Amino acid sequence: MIRVTIYNEYVHEREDEAIREVYPEGIHMTLKQQLEDEEITVRTVTLDDLPDGLSDEVLAETDVLIWWGHIRHREVPDEVAQRVQQAVLKGMGAIFLHSAHHSKPFRLLMGTSCNLTWREDGDSELVWVINPAHPIAQGIGRFIKLEHEEAYGEPFTVPEPDELVFIGTYDGGEVFRSGCCYRKENGRVFYFQPGHESYRTYHHPDVIRVLKNAIHWANPIYRVPELVCPHVKKPLED
Amino acid sequence: MIRVTIYNEYVHEREDEAIREVYPEGIHMTLKQQLEDEEITVRTVTLDDLPDGLSDEVLAETDVLIWWGHIRHREVPDEVAQRVQQAVLKGMGAIFLHSAHHSKPFRLLMGTSCNLTWREDGDSELVWVINPAHPIAQGIGRFIKLEHEEAYGEPFTVPEPDELVFIGTYDGGEVFRSGCCYRKENGRVFYFQPGHESYRTYHHPDVIRVLKNAIHWANPIYRVPELVCPHVKKPLED
Amino acid sequence: MIRVTIYNEYVHEREDEAIREVYPEGIHMTLKQQLEDEEITVRTVTLDDLPDGLSDEVLAETDVLIWWGHIRHREVPDEVAQRVQQAVLKGMGAIFLHSAHHSKPFRLLMGTSCNLTWREDGDSELVWVINPAHPIAQGIGRFIKLEHEEAYGEPFTVPEPDELVFIGTYDGGEVFRSGCCYRKENGRVFYFQPGHESYRTYHHPDVIRVLKNAIHWANPIYRVPELVCPHVKKPLED
Amino acid sequence: MIRVTIYNEYVHEREDEAIREVYPEGIHMTLKQQLEDEEITVRTVTLDDLPDGLSDEVLAETDVLIWWGHIRHREVPDEVAQRVQQAVLKGMGAIFLHSAHHSKPFRLLMGTSCNLTWREDGDSELVWVINPAHPIAQGIGRFIKLEHEEAYGEPFTVPEPDELVFIGTYDGGEVFRSGCCYRKENGRVFYFQPGHESYRTYHHPDVIRVLKNAIHWANPIYRVPELVCPHVKKPLED
Repeated sequence: MIRVTIYNEYVHEREDEAIREVYPEGIHMTLKQQLEDEEITVRTVTLDDLPDGLSDEVLAETDVLIWWGHIRHREVPDEVAQRVQQAVLKGMGAIFLHSAHHSKPFRLLMGTSCNLTWREDGDSELVWVINPAHPIAQGIGRFIKLEHEEAYGEPFTVPEPDELVFIGTYDGGEVFRSGCCYRKENGRVFYFQPGHESYRTYHHPDVIRVLKNAIHWANPIYRVPELVCPHVKKPLED
Repeated sequence: MIRVTIYNEYVHEREDEAIREVYPEGIHMTLKQQLEDEEITVRTVTLDDLPDGLSDEVLAETDVLIWWGHIRHREVPDEVAQRVQQAVLKGMGAIFLHSAHHSKPFRLLMGTSCNLTWREDGDSELVWVINPAHPIAQGIGRFIKLEHEEAYGEPFTVPEPDELVFIGTYDGGEVFRSGCCYRKENGRVFYFQPGHESYRTYHHPDVIRVLKNAIHWANPIYRVPELVCPHVKKPLED
Repeated sequence: MIRVTIYNEYVHEREDEAIREVYPEGIHMTLKQQLEDEEITVRTVTLDDLPDGLSDEVLAETDVLIWWGHIRHREVPDEVAQRVQQAVLKGMGAIFLHSAHHSKPFRLLMGTSCNLTWREDGDSELVWVINPAHPIAQGIGRFIKLEHEEAYGEPFTVPEPDELVFIGTYDGGEVFRSGCCYRKENGRVFYFQPGHESYRTYHHPDVIRVLKNAIHWANPIYRVPELVCPHVKKPLED
Repeated sequence: MIRVTIYNEYVHEREDEAIREVYPEGIHMTLKQQLEDEEITVRTVTLDDLPDGLSDEVLAETDVLIWWGHIRHREVPDEVAQRVQQAVLKGMGAIFLHSAHHSKPFRLLMGTSCNLTWREDGDSELVWVINPAHPIAQGIGRFIKLEHEEAYGEPFTVPEPDELVFIGTYDGGEVFRSGCCYRKENGRVFYFQPGHESYRTYHHPDVIRVLKNAIHWANPIYRVPELVCPHVKKPLED
C-alpha cells in the first residue's frame, strides 16, 4: 500500500463560488477520491492544518507527498518547507502540481527561482508525451487535451530535468516543460504543470492516470535512517 | 579563425524550381554568404563531392561541420559517415540541420533511431528560448517567429539532450525540441530543427544568429591526436 | 517472469585451463546458475551460435540481454549488433559486462569509442556505491571488495551516464566509472565493469546481487511495435 | 578583465600555527597571489567582513565568486547565503572549494544535504581527469598528484553533476567526485574537492591551473536584470 499525503492550500475553493463548483470539497478531496485504489491510500492536509499536519511523524508515514498551493505560499511555515525537503532527501517521493512551482519546498529542492511566464485566457492545452517509455507516461496517447488551462510559458527556471516526460502548448503558442522528473538525493520529485483551480483538469482521466503513474514512480525504494556526514575509518579497516 | 565546412545534399535546389527560387545557389551558398565574417571562414561540399569532399584531410582542417541533407541520406557513403563520427569524437564540432536528424553521421553519434513525426502544411513556427543564458541563445529574444516551417513533432527519439536550448511549436499544435546540445566524447554536437528547403528560414537573421552562436559554441578547445585504448603502467610508475 | 538471454563469447574458458577452472562451463553458465530464480529465467547463447542465436525471434522473446565478450568482438556479425541495438531502442533491456565496453552493440548504442585504459596486475578493487537509493545498489553496503580484477582506468569515453551508480578503484590508484545507467530511446542500458575472465568475480554474491537488481531495473515496461517516422495529420484532426 | 571575489572564512590560519605556516596570510591571499594575471583581478573577503563584505553591490561587481569555509559555516548570515544564491541564479559564476560543500550558499544552490564521508590521515590523493575535453581540465595530464589531502568519500549527496570533470582517490581506497559542474539557472557552479587547510594544496600549480580554468568557464556570458515571474500577453500580440 502506497501512503500518499495530499497537501492543498484550500483557499480558492472556499472563497470563490465558481471555483467551488469545480472542486466542491477542495482539490484535495477531488484528487483523493480518484487516486485511492487497492494500491494507494490518501490522507489530506490543508494550510489550516499546518504546521502539525505535516509534522515529522506525518511525513515518516508518507511515501509520496502531493502539493498544491497558489496564493498562500508564504503562509507555509519555513519549518514545514524544510521538513518536506529533508523527507524527500531521505527518500520520500514528492509531486508538485501547477502553481506549486513557487511553493517553498519545491524551491528549496530545486535551488533555483522556479520562475515562468503566465497568461490566463482560458486557452486549451495539448500536453505532449515526449518520452513514451517513461513509467509516468504509460497509458497516455500522443497527448492529453485539456479544454482550458492557464498558459505557463518558458523560460521555466528550474534545473535541467533528469527526465523530461511532457511538453505542453496552448492556443496562444507558448510552450512549457509540463512534466519534469528529478532525483534529489534519495527521493524522487515530479513536477506536473496542469491544474489551475478554475478548470476541470483534475477531473480528466488522463491527468489522474499521470498522477497515479507518478505516485508509483516516486514511491521510495530506499530510505536513509538519518542524515549524516560521518567520519570514517579506512575502508579496509572497517 | 574558425574553419567551417558546410555539407549540403544539394538536390532539391537543382530539381525543383520553387525551391531554387528560395536558394538559387543552394542552401550551402546561402549559409556561407551569411555565416562568413571576420571570425568564420566557410568551405562547402555537396553530395556530388563525396567521398573525397569529406576526406580525413578535409575533416582535419574543419573546426565545425554543418550538415544539411534530406532525401539522399542513403547515398552518403558509410565511410564518410564514420569519418565524421570519428572526427567529432576527436573534438570537431558538428551542427545538424532540420532533416539531418536522419542523416547517417547524426544517427551514429546519437545511437538511437532519431525518429519524429512530421507534417508539411506551411504552418508558422515559434521557436522558444528555453535557456536564455546558453551561449547559443545570445541575442535572441523570447522566441523566433518563422512564417513557414515543416511541422516536426514529438516523440523525437534522441538521447535526453545535455542542454535543451529551444522548443518549437506550430499552428497545428505540435511541440518539438528544436535546439539540442550534446557532448560526444571530445566534440560538441548541436541539432537545430528549422530549415525546410521550401521556406526562407535560412534568410532569417535570428536563424543565422543562432548558427553563428552554435559555431562558436562547438568550436573545439581540445583535439585527441588518435583514438586509443591503451595498456598503461601503474599510475605512480609512469 | 523476466526472460534473460546471456550472450557469452565463450573462447577463453575453452582455450585456457586456468580460466576454465574458474568458469568450467563458461561464464554464461556460471551466471545462469546464479541468476535464475522464481522471477528470472535464463537462456544462453555463445559466439558459435551466431547469427541465429540472436535472431529477431530470440530478441523478441528476450526482456533483458546480458553481454560478455572480449577478444572476438569483430567476429560478431554486424547484423547481430544492429539487431541488438534496434531491440534496445524498442524497449529491451541490456547489460554489458566488463570488456563488452568494446562490443559492437554497446558502441552502436553509445555512439562513442568507449575507450579506457587498462592494466592487468591482479589488483584488488573496491567498487563504491555512489547512489545508495538507486535500484541497482539495493542490498549492497558501502562498497564491494573484489580480491582480484583487471584495472580499468579513466577516461572512459562514453556519454555522461544518465545515472552513475558505482565508481571503482584499484590498488594501483586508478578510478573508473564502474556502473553506468543509460536510457536509449525505449530501452535501458547498464554497463558494469567487474568481470575479468581469470578472476572469480561472477562467484561473488554482491556481484550477482547487482546483476539481479540490474535485470529488474532494465526489464522493459514499454515496447514500441515498430520503428517509425510517420507523417501525421494535425493533432486535433486525428 | 574577470572580476573574482574570494571569500575565505580565515579562522584556521589565525588560530593554528601549523596551518599559518602553510598559508601565512590566509588561504585567500595565497589564492589571490597566484590567480591574478592579465585577465583576472581578485578582491578578498573574510568572515569578519560579513555581511557587508558580500553586499549586493559587491556581488554585482563580481563575475566569479570563490568560497572557502569549514568550521564557521553557521556564522555566515542567512541573508548573505541567499544573496549569493540569487547572484548565481542571475548569472554570477561560483566556485566552491573543499569543505565549502557544507557552506550555506552551496547547499541552497544544490537543494540537497551535500554530505560525504571524511577521514584525515594525511593520505596522498590522485585527482583523475575524467573528461579531458572539458575547459576546466585543459593543461592537466592524466591526473594531479597531491602529497597530502583529507580523504573525502562517497556517497556525496549532491545532484548528479551536469558534467563530471574529476574523480579523486586516496591511499586508503576511497573515491570521490572531486570536480563537479552545474548550471544553476543563469549561473555556473563548480565544486572542487582539494584544499584542506593543513596541506599545501593551493601551492600546487595544477590546482591553480584548474582554478584559473574554472574562473574562465564560470565567467558569465549572460546576466538577468531582475528575477521575475511575469504575466504576459499572447506571444503574437506582444
